[in-house]
Order: sequence, then C-alpha cells, then structure tokens
Amino acid sequence: MELLTTNNVWMMICTALVFFMHTGFAFLEIGLTRQKNTINILFKNIFIITVGLLLYYIAGFNLMYPGFEEGAAGVFDFAGFGITPPENGMTPEYADGGYTWWTDFLFQGMFAATAATIVSGAVAERMKIGPFMIFTIIYVGVVYPIAGSWKWGSGFLDQLGFYDFAGSTLVHSVGGWAALVAVWLLGSRIGKFKDGKPQAIPGHNIPLATAGVLVLWLGWFGFNGGSVLSADPELTSLTLVTTCLAAAAGGVVAALVSFLRFKNLDLTMFLNGILGGLVGITAGADVMTPESAIIIGAIAGALIVFAVSFIDGIKLDDPVGAIAVHLICGIWGTLAVGIFSTNPEHTFLIQLLGVACYAGFCLVTSFLILFTLKKTVGIRVSEREELEGLDGHEHGMSAYADFRMNEH
Amino acid sequence: MELLTTNNVWMMICTALVFFMHTGFAFLEIGLTRQKNTINILFKNIFIITVGLLLYYIAGFNLMYPGFEEGAAGVFDFAGFGITPPENGMTPEYADGGYTWWTDFLFQGMFAATAATIVSGAVAERMKIGPFMIFTIIYVGVVYPIAGSWKWGSGFLDQLGFYDFAGSTLVHSVGGWAALVAVWLLGSRIGKFKDGKPQAIPGHNIPLATAGVLVLWLGWFGFNGGSVLSADPELTSLTLVTTCLAAAAGGVVAALVSFLRFKNLDLTMFLNGILGGLVGITAGADVMTPESAIIIGAIAGALIVFAVSFIDGIKLDDPVGAIAVHLICGIWGTLAVGIFSTNPEHTFLIQLLGVACYAGFCLVTSFLILFTLKKTVGIRVSEREELEGLDGHEHGMSAYADFRMNEH
Amino acid sequence: MELLTTNNVWMMICTALVFFMHTGFAFLEIGLTRQKNTINILFKNIFIITVGLLLYYIAGFNLMYPGFEEGAAGVFDFAGFGITPPENGMTPEYADGGYTWWTDFLFQGMFAATAATIVSGAVAERMKIGPFMIFTIIYVGVVYPIAGSWKWGSGFLDQLGFYDFAGSTLVHSVGGWAALVAVWLLGSRIGKFKDGKPQAIPGHNIPLATAGVLVLWLGWFGFNGGSVLSADPELTSLTLVTTCLAAAAGGVVAALVSFLRFKNLDLTMFLNGILGGLVGITAGADVMTPESAIIIGAIAGALIVFAVSFIDGIKLDDPVGAIAVHLICGIWGTLAVGIFSTNPEHTFLIQLLGVACYAGFCLVTSFLILFTLKKTVGIRVSEREELEGLDGHEHGMSAYADFRMNEH
Repeated sequence: MELLTTNNVWMMICTALVFFMHTGFAFLEIGLTRQKNTINILFKNIFIITVGLLLYYIAGFNLMYPGFEEGAAGVFDFAGFGITPPENGMTPEYADGGYTWWTDFLFQGMFAATAATIVSGAVAERMKIGPFMIFTIIYVGVVYPIAGSWKWGSGFLDQLGFYDFAGSTLVHSVGGWAALVAVWLLGSRIGKFKDGKPQAIPGHNIPLATAGVLVLWLGWFGFNGGSVLSADPELTSLTLVTTCLAAAAGGVVAALVSFLRFKNLDLTMFLNGILGGLVGITAGADVMTPESAIIIGAIAGALIVFAVSFIDGIKLDDPVGAIAVHLICGIWGTLAVGIFSTNPEHTFLIQLLGVACYAGFCLVTSFLILFTLKKTVGIRVSEREELEGLDGHEHGMSAYADFRMNEH
Repeated sequence: MELLTTNNVWMMICTALVFFMHTGFAFLEIGLTRQKNTINILFKNIFIITVGLLLYYIAGFNLMYPGFEEGAAGVFDFAGFGITPPENGMTPEYADGGYTWWTDFLFQGMFAATAATIVSGAVAERMKIGPFMIFTIIYVGVVYPIAGSWKWGSGFLDQLGFYDFAGSTLVHSVGGWAALVAVWLLGSRIGKFKDGKPQAIPGHNIPLATAGVLVLWLGWFGFNGGSVLSADPELTSLTLVTTCLAAAAGGVVAALVSFLRFKNLDLTMFLNGILGGLVGITAGADVMTPESAIIIGAIAGALIVFAVSFIDGIKLDDPVGAIAVHLICGIWGTLAVGIFSTNPEHTFLIQLLGVACYAGFCLVTSFLILFTLKKTVGIRVSEREELEGLDGHEHGMSAYADFRMNEH
Repeated sequence: MELLTTNNVWMMICTALVFFMHTGFAFLEIGLTRQKNTINILFKNIFIITVGLLLYYIAGFNLMYPGFEEGAAGVFDFAGFGITPPENGMTPEYADGGYTWWTDFLFQGMFAATAATIVSGAVAERMKIGPFMIFTIIYVGVVYPIAGSWKWGSGFLDQLGFYDFAGSTLVHSVGGWAALVAVWLLGSRIGKFKDGKPQAIPGHNIPLATAGVLVLWLGWFGFNGGSVLSADPELTSLTLVTTCLAAAAGGVVAALVSFLRFKNLDLTMFLNGILGGLVGITAGADVMTPESAIIIGAIAGALIVFAVSFIDGIKLDDPVGAIAVHLICGIWGTLAVGIFSTNPEHTFLIQLLGVACYAGFCLVTSFLILFTLKKTVGIRVSEREELEGLDGHEHGMSAYADFRMNEH
C-alpha cells in the first residue's frame, strides 16, 4: 500500500504536468503566428482540452483500454460508455500497483487531447473553426483511442512486439499525419508563397513561443516520466535523463545546422530542435543509454532543419513546423528504438511495420473526415476573413485591444 | 514513517501548486483589464501573496486552527502569535500522518491569500491602492481565519455537519462576498455604463488571461488534491478526476450557452466557465461520482453566463467576472454537496445554513472595513487618475514601455 | 525500497522545478530590458540550459563529484568523461537512499546552468553573443563544477566546516562575481548615464518580469527543497517554510524601504526584494527557525534597495539588478548562516572564509576569460547594433513583429 501511494503520487504529478503541456502548445502556436488569429488559436486549444477530456470520459478510455486483455482492440472489445472502476481499481492489484484506476483514466485522458493540438498548430490562421471542432471530436473521440488500442490497449501491434514507450507514434505521429493531410487539403495561407518561393510570415510573440517550448519540456517530465506507469526509481530517473539530454542535443544541433546553412542564430529553429529531440526520444526513453539519447536527439535536431525546408519546398504551409516536429521526428524516434534500444527484442522491422500501420490508418481516417468536411461545409475561411484575421470574424474580439498593430 | 514521507511529499507539491495559482490570478486579472492599470494589479497580487503569508505566520494559522479541539473557534481559542510546532508535529501521530506541522502551516497559508486576490480582480482599475492594502491586511489576517475556523478549525459549523471540502464557500465565497460589497461601494468604472447600458471594456492581453486560467486549473490539482490532507490513493485520484471533469463541463457549457444566446464563440466566457466549474466542484470534489461532477460543472458553466448578464443588469461593474465565478459558483458548489454527495450525512439544509452564516459574516465585516475606509481616506482614485491609468499615478511606471498604445 | 522510491519522486519533482526556473529567468530578464534585445536574451537562455546540460554530462558532474570521497576536489580527482552509474547507483545504498544516481546527475545538472544565467541578465543589451557563448561554455563547463567540488564534492571547504545548503554562494555568488566582472569590463549601455547621473531605462514587459519572479519562487521550492537530498518530512517542510517566509519578508521590506526613500510603490523593487530574500535564505534554509528566516529575508530586502543605488552610484550598469540580488544577497545569506544557524558548528569566520575563497576564484577566472575575449574577439556590439537592437543584427528577427513600437 505504501508503494501504491507513492506510485500514485508520481502518476498524479505526471498527469498535472501533461495537462500543463496544453499551456505550452497554446503559447507556442500563438507565438509563431500573427496576432490577428490569436483568439482563434486559444479558443481551439481550450476547446481541445475540455472536449477532449469529456470525450475520453464518454467513450475514449474504454475504446483504448478494452479490458486489458491480450489481443483486445478498439471497437471490437468496446467496454461501454462512462467510466466505472473495476472492483480492484483502487488496490495494489490493479496495474501492478502503479496507480489507481482514476489516475489511469486522467493520465490517459490528458494524452488524448494532444493529438488534436498538433493539428491545430498546422492549420492555424486559415481553417474554419466549426469544421475544426467537428474534426477534433471525431479524431480525439474515436480515431486516437482505436489507434492507441493497437499498442497500449494490448492490441495486435503489441502482440507483435512493436514498442512505443510514450507515444512518438501513438500520439505525435497520429497528430502529425492528420496535420499533413489537413495542410494539404487546406492550401497555404495567402502570401506564404510568392512566385513559388516561400515567404517568412513572422510570429507575433516570440517570448510566449519560447515559454511554450520550456513549458512543453517541463510537461515532458510527466509525459515520459509518467509513461513508466509507476514511480520505479531506476526507470523513471533514467527516462528523465534521456528525455532532457535528447532535448538539449536536438536544440543545439538544430541551431548549429541552421547556423551553418543560413549564417543566422535562429531562435525558432533552436526551439523546434528541442521539440524534435523530445518527440524523438519519446518512443524509447526508458530503453536508451544517455549516449543513445544524445544521438537520437541530435539526429532529430538536424532532421528538423531539413524537414522544414523540404515542407516549404513542396509548397505545404505549416505555420508552426508541426509536421517536421511531430511527424518526422515521431517516425524517426519510433525507428530509432529498433536501432538503439537496450532491449534486444525491439527490431527495426517491427518498428517500421508499426509506423506503416499508423500512417495508413491516420492518413485514411483524417482524409475521410477532412475531405468530407471540405466538400460539405468547407474548411477554409473566406479571403476577407483570412486577411482581416479570424479573431474579429469568428470571435468578435481582439487579443491585444490596447496595443497598436502593424498592418500586414 | 514511509507513509508520512509520501503523504508529506504530496502535500508539499500541492502547496507549490496552490502558490502557483497566484501567477494564474495575476495573469487573469491583468489580461481582462486595460494596460494602463497593469502594474497596479500586479503590485496588489504580489502584495497579497507576500503579506498574506506573513500575516498567516503572525496570527492567521493560530486563529484558524486553535488547537484542533472540537468546538474550538477563532478568537475564543486563539493559540498565540508566531508558529511553534507541537511536540509531535513532525511525527506520524500528527494529523494522522498526513503531513508535518510545517507543511500544514504552508499549505493553509497559501490558501489564505486567495480570498483577497478574488477581491483584487473585482475592484481593478479604480480602487486606491492604500485602502486596498489595509482591507487586505484585515480581511486576510483576521476575517478569513476566523471564518475558516468555523469549519476547518473544528468550529460550530463543523460540529453541525456542514461540509466544504476545499473551500467553495470558505475561500471562494468569502472572497466573493467581499468583492460584491467592494464593487457596490466603489461604483462602476467611467464609461462602463452609457445610458444605462453596459459597455464592453475589452481586456488588453487575452493570451495572458488564457494562460492564467490554465495555470489556475493546474493549481486546482493542488487546491483540491491537497485538501484530502494526505496522499490517499483513492481519494486524491478521485478528486483530480472530478475536478478536471467539472472544469471541462463548465467551460463547454458556458461556451455553448453563450453561443446560443449571443451567436458568438466567446473565449472569455469559455474561460470563466472553466473557473466556474472548478469553483463549483471544490466543495465536494471528494464525495462526487464523475457523473455528478460533470453535472455540477455544467450547471456552474450555465450559471456563469446568466450571472455575468445579471450583474451587468443591476449596474455592478466587475471587470473580471469575479462575483459570478467565485461567489455564485461558490454558493452553487456548496449547495450541490447537499444534492449530489455520496455521503448521506450531507444535507441541503445544513449546506444552506453554512452559506447563510458566511454570507452574513462576510457581508458585515467587509462592509464595515470598506465603508470605514470610504468615509475616511476614500477608496476611489480621482477621475483624472482613473482616465490616465493607475500605473503612472500610483507607481510611476508603465507595464509596456516600448509599445505604442491606443487611447481610450 | 519504498523510501527510496518516495525520496526519488520528490527529487525528480524538485529537478523539474529547478528546470522551470529557466523560464523564470528568461521572463525576468526580457521583462526588465528593451524589446529590441528580447530575442537575443531568449537565445542566450535557451543556449545556457541546453549546452549547460550537455557540458554537465560530458564532464561537469564528474568534475564536481569526484567519487564522493573525503577531501576529493575538482580536476585533481576527475572521474572521467560521460556518466556511467556506479554499481549500486540505483539501490538504497547509494546516497543514503535519497535518490538514484540518474536523478543525482539531472538535479545537479539543472543547478549548473543557473550560474551562467545570472551573468546573462547583467550583460544584457550590449554583449556580443559569440563571446558570451564561449564564456558560458568555460564557466559552466569548468569553473562552476570545480568551485562546487570544494564544498558539495566534499572538497577542502567542506572539510573545514563551511556550510552552503543550496547555493547562496556556490550558485548565486559564483554567478554574481562573474556578473560583476562582466559588467565592469563591458561598460554601461549607451544612455544609461547622463552627466554622471544614472537614467532609468524602463523594461518593456513588466507582466512577464512579474511572472518570472513568481516562477522563480515556485522553482525555489525545488531548488531548496531538493537540496535536502531526500524527502525527509521534517527537513523538507521546514525548508519550504523558511524559503517562503524569507521571500515574503524580502519583498515587503524592499517595497517598504523603497517607498520610504522614494515615495513610490515600486513593483520592480518589490520583485527584486523577493528574489533577494530567496537568495539570502538559500545558504541555510534547513538550519533556520521561521523567525530567523524572516529576519534574513528582511535584511536581504533592505540590502537590495541600497545595493541597487550603490551599483548605480559607482557607474556599473546592471540592467536587471543581478549583482544586487545574486552577489550581495548571496554573500549576506552565506554569512547569515554563521549568525543564525541552529547548528552550533556553523561559524561566522568559516562562512567568511568560504565567501572569500569563492570571491577570489570567481573574480580571477571570470576576469581571465572575459578579458581574453575582450582583447581578442571583443565582447561589446557596435554602437549601431546596440542602438538598433541585437535582435535584428544577431538573429535577423523581431520579438513582436505585429506590434508598433516606440523609438528609443
């Protein structure tokens, strides 16, 4: 009982830290975009965390964890609506004494909303809010938990030996694939490409973007640290060490590569490099040496710089770099488990198979949802609304009423 | 001893989280008001947390917890100045091993300052800082701990079976009643009512206001989670689940009702709905099912929308919606215990009696303090100071020196 | 094992809180300076935390803790590159069961970066970023861990009975001495002194500066609370009480003294008083009564007001008050242990000797590094760059692209 109490304390703190990541995402997304769309982005973030939790209560948790039986998966073993704890849900018998059933629900519920948040950043400044809300409800409420059940709900990928410790694929790539589809279906912001060349559209509040990354890094203490699913001293502390070293290496390498390529000390690239390192280490944070963590983070940091250029090059407009950070580094991190894991049972091929399964499922489902929305209600705001900003048109208010702004 | 250590770790973290709520309050209050009064609001917030802690050290703690004896209450059993731990204050015998005496003091001290912070938001942009400081000292130093002793200090309401888990009434309504009196005695800001109709005075930094709400929600993990007064796995994790679900339901319903009434996706209402849900669940977070928590939060969210209109309608000017959030939802949450509690000993009538006792005591004491201040030194700044902003006049500085501002 | 788990949970949370302090430092430093140098300051902060961690991984940790043997110190007992846990590093035998070896590394690594951050604030708005990065690498990578080994690595000052609980000297003064040297070698910002009189150069974002101080205070829960090196209920909770009371007293006294001297309710002084109180209590937070903590904090708060004037008076330009806060209050706190400690083995003379040793070592090393940089690559930006801001010149971007700014 003492150990359950301690484990549960750790898991509740990690839950709080993952919750706090939504502040980080909100800061990052508004900081890297223009002030005229700030209210819209904040509204979406608040929508995601509140509705995401309620959806996870209604069905998500039961879709994702259908009884903890081997081979169970998603809708085929749906455990019903609402959350009713099992008889032993508060005893050390539940989940090896790692936490109570209530904590289990809340910790996983905080994860659920993250996938939609990733999409929110990518579609910023031009997507209609109504269709975004519909997309969020379906993606967080149904797609994410079913996808999650394949591995974390003891589904078929888990049986095959696929490993994704804290969600490089199950959370970040799941969001990243949808972001890719959404950005493609939406088209780029007015003014992003001139004569085929990408134009910089500067973010309006870099201090908040920077704070957002630091808050996200802090949140990752809980995101990865809590994914140990107990307070096991060795595993939790190793996880925090690999997480922080990968973040540091990702940032430094992204800044360095960016400096060598563009002769500029680019703060945004530094920040996205940190996030890339964090996403990259997430799939295997508990099965890496510190040395491997630094290598994984460093490669993630370099990937970020090239991925951002590549995405620009194929004329996709991702205002906050969400695809580079969450999709590319999510894939990299998942594959890296097959290369660097200290557990010899993890293999590159199975990791690749897992990546492919999620790619297929997420591309198809997000395309079906978003394409349907595009052809029915439409997903893009009018040109006038885009130029004047979504804040006035969709929300009737301004983020900084007392400040004078530049026109653009 | 192991269990005391674990319990105490949890309680110290909760203490830190409640401390952090003051950042949330500061962000929320400045975000929803005008930039010209920002320094003034920040100064008040910093004053409240520092002076509040010192007052709680000097006398507050001993006024509120006069020896943990049954029937003891406030001044009649005052345990003396300063804080001297009892002999067993660091052993598992103290407080059932839930925490040490030092932690007890600090956790409760962090709560004490909250009541005054609620008032700070309501009187923003027009109250003189000197009288506000005097009011804070008396209200935090004397009124709050005496009122608290009635229930948490094992006073008469505790003996009668009144229940207020974490302070819907003892903290939020205690602040809310004083806010109501202060707003009434102060009068509305210049320009708030034109021809009898309320005018919107937009807040100047909605990103910070949004961050403030997210920080407050985070802080509520500690506010409610710590009110279990141990790390009991079942109770703490249930409390976090009910707290988060009520917050989510409050936000969603407030946004929805607001959309149905005003055809607008109102971020401010969404945010205040979350706070309303949090305040509402606070009185009974440990005795609710998740379903009841969602209902309580949802009703709180709806109440917020109508309460804000009603308060506008009776010509009271509450710039941040403090009365709707803390007073109305505080009352609702306290009464809801009498309706939804899983503990059959909680009754609606006793809950109502508790609300009435606090209403009487807080209305009388806050009126006496504020009316005396109004008739002697005055509580309202000059018209010129109000128009030009309190920052220049009371503090000789500006919050955003490098930015160009709009006039209004 | 249960106790190790609990202790380790506490230490990991404290690690997270110390990490979060870098958000606090970033907010404080940019808030108190001008918007045109914001990106530069943020870049430095992100550089410090990422590179600092990697350096501590490469060599810092082993330089600072060379085997935990008595009398061991710095380079003379260097334990080699990289971090390889000892055989018992994850068992209760390691460090008296206070934490695992991984946690040990990460907690100490978070401390290491702090010293350079202190310098960052003092040299803001005029130092070239390249030389700053070089300075940081040497100071964080070599000077800090060697200096730290003297006391925390069981070096000669530890053998002599010198006491510095959490780093009033080992962290804050070590940073503060370098800040003093840097400010002196750099010279003051253009416009800071006119006709020999100091001119106020207002900070551009006081809300963020205020939030920074609150985040730092929160971080100090981990900075001091974690320095107990276990979750011992009595010591950790006493430490949090003394820490918070000293912060509160420091703030209140600084505001009061400032009001008496300048007839102004100065928010910046209030904030720096809080930080002064925190730095002051840090050397002895676990060996003080609450009463002593209040006295130490109060004196620190008063010192801040006079120190800021004095530093202005001798024509040193420290934009954020880093020397007053970290150096002056760091010295005061270290000496205060010799006066107020409840442990009779702590003596004023040994504390003074410790302060002198660190003064000598830090003044010499930071002078050697910075003077060499000044005479080779130069440490100060061009006049044009300083007037136009470092953000455009060094980073090619602006912190607030959409906002209109005042010229100055």
